[in-house]
Amino acid sequence: MSANPTACLLIIGNEVLSGRTRDANLQFLATRLGEIGIPLREVRVIPDVPEVIVETVNAVRPRFDHVFTTGGIGPTHDDITAECIARAFGVPWEKHPEAMALLTAHYEKQGTEFNAARQRMATIPRGSALIPNPVSVAPGFTIGNVHVMAGVPRIMQAMFEALAPGLIGGRPVLSRSVHADGIYEGQIAEGLGAIQACHPALDIGSYPYYRPDRSGVALVAKGLEEAEVVAAAAEMAALIRQVGKEPLEGEPG
Amino acid sequence: MSANPTACLLIIGNEVLSGRTRDANLQFLATRLGEIGIPLREVRVIPDVPEVIVETVNAVRPRFDHVFTTGGIGPTHDDITAECIARAFGVPWEKHPEAMALLTAHYEKQGTEFNAARQRMATIPRGSALIPNPVSVAPGFTIGNVHVMAGVPRIMQAMFEALAPGLIGGRPVLSRSVHADGIYEGQIAEGLGAIQACHPALDIGSYPYYRPDRSGVALVAKGLEEAEVVAAAAEMAALIRQVGKEPLEGEPG
Repeated sequence: MSANPTACLLIIGNEVLSGRTRDANLQFLATRLGEIGIPLREVRVIPDVPEVIVETVNAVRPRFDHVFTTGGIGPTHDDITAECIARAFGVPWEKHPEAMALLTAHYEKQGTEFNAARQRMATIPRGSALIPNPVSVAPGFTIGNVHVMAGVPRIMQAMFEALAPGLIGGRPVLSRSVHADGIYEGQIAEGLGAIQACHPALDIGSYPYYRPDRSGVALVAKGLEEAEVVAAAAEMAALIRQVGKEPLEGEPG
Repeated sequence: MSANPTACLLIIGNEVLSGRTRDANLQFLATRLGEIGIPLREVRVIPDVPEVIVETVNAVRPRFDHVFTTGGIGPTHDDITAECIARAFGVPWEKHPEAMALLTAHYEKQGTEFNAARQRMATIPRGSALIPNPVSVAPGFTIGNVHVMAGVPRIMQAMFEALAPGLIGGRPVLSRSVHADGIYEGQIAEGLGAIQACHPALDIGSYPYYRPDRSGVALVAKGLEEAEVVAAAAEMAALIRQVGKEPLEGEPG
């Protein structure tokens, strides 16, 4: 659909794979990356296993313009992301002077011990640039095209917003939706395929929805050229009228 | 942690990667697969791009005992999962007589046309076994170790429950949690690492939580031996008492 830069997300954490924790970062990053024109092209959820993290980072970093990771940068024994990224890049994992200074000042102000576990959060692959953490101080970092962020959604979001102005995006992906209650995909599939065939540069999708009181289908056109996205949305609305229903703009509530 | 059979999940769909749709299948499958002793070891979210689907299916099916897919098996042009699975296995993608019979009867009863788009939902890789769909008839299918399911959560869940009794699981993964408000990971990191070191067969995790009115840390022990999981939970409770807080059983509400 575009020659925009691309992104991959690695969600690192046993707690997501075990079902304990429901990931809340994918949708936020997917939306924000689309807005800044660096569409998310793949996500992998992987366990806290060093070999898997190292292998996965090295598998994806040559294939995407940006790799974002979430999770595993706290002070406990299961927070192994930073040392695995160092291994993946073949660089030392060492105390970062600027991160040490930030955390020393933070714990001093709090009157809390800056112990060995907390110093882990300032131990970062050599050559990294810090990503500010306005929520809880302990920074993320960027090395090469890999951006390492916290897993806690509030902290991850703050880190991403600190990073975003420095990311060189492409054109934002534009989207228009129409929907109607009481239609079925099987009724509009042929017409929708024809609309997609007329607009190969667009990404045309069809998504059934089910609500307690009503169900239907939402049709979505996405692309970079506003005029073409708008034209496709009008054709999708006409298709819904052809099967005797009234199209409504936007997504179903 | 175990020699249990392993699972990988492929979530197929542009709508998840664009942020339009929040995936609701990962957590359900992670939980159910843990319960039946086939722990989920990796998840990939991939776009509706044939080459990516074929390549990913073939990359993961030799590496895991089971591969589950969700999404892309409806009647519209963007539902390309079944034909991509056929390509991945190098078998014809063809009308499946049993699926055709099921859908013919269904649309006849409804007085609805069983058109070409709907016949797509009965077009399946040769050699597949059908997965029943008690919600909306159109079946999923299993070929080799790959189980292809719908993306709509209600339908996916029904398909999974139809499949589950036939899956040969290992021992269920057992889990115990303790938590306490007002503790910080940095306080208990060293002690928790020692508990992990004493129980290499367990998976010990630490998860901060943030609520509008309180925050703290939950500690989780997972494993196959109940006695060892219970012992580790008692040690984690003692660790919380050491830092002057009262441990509470289970996850924070």
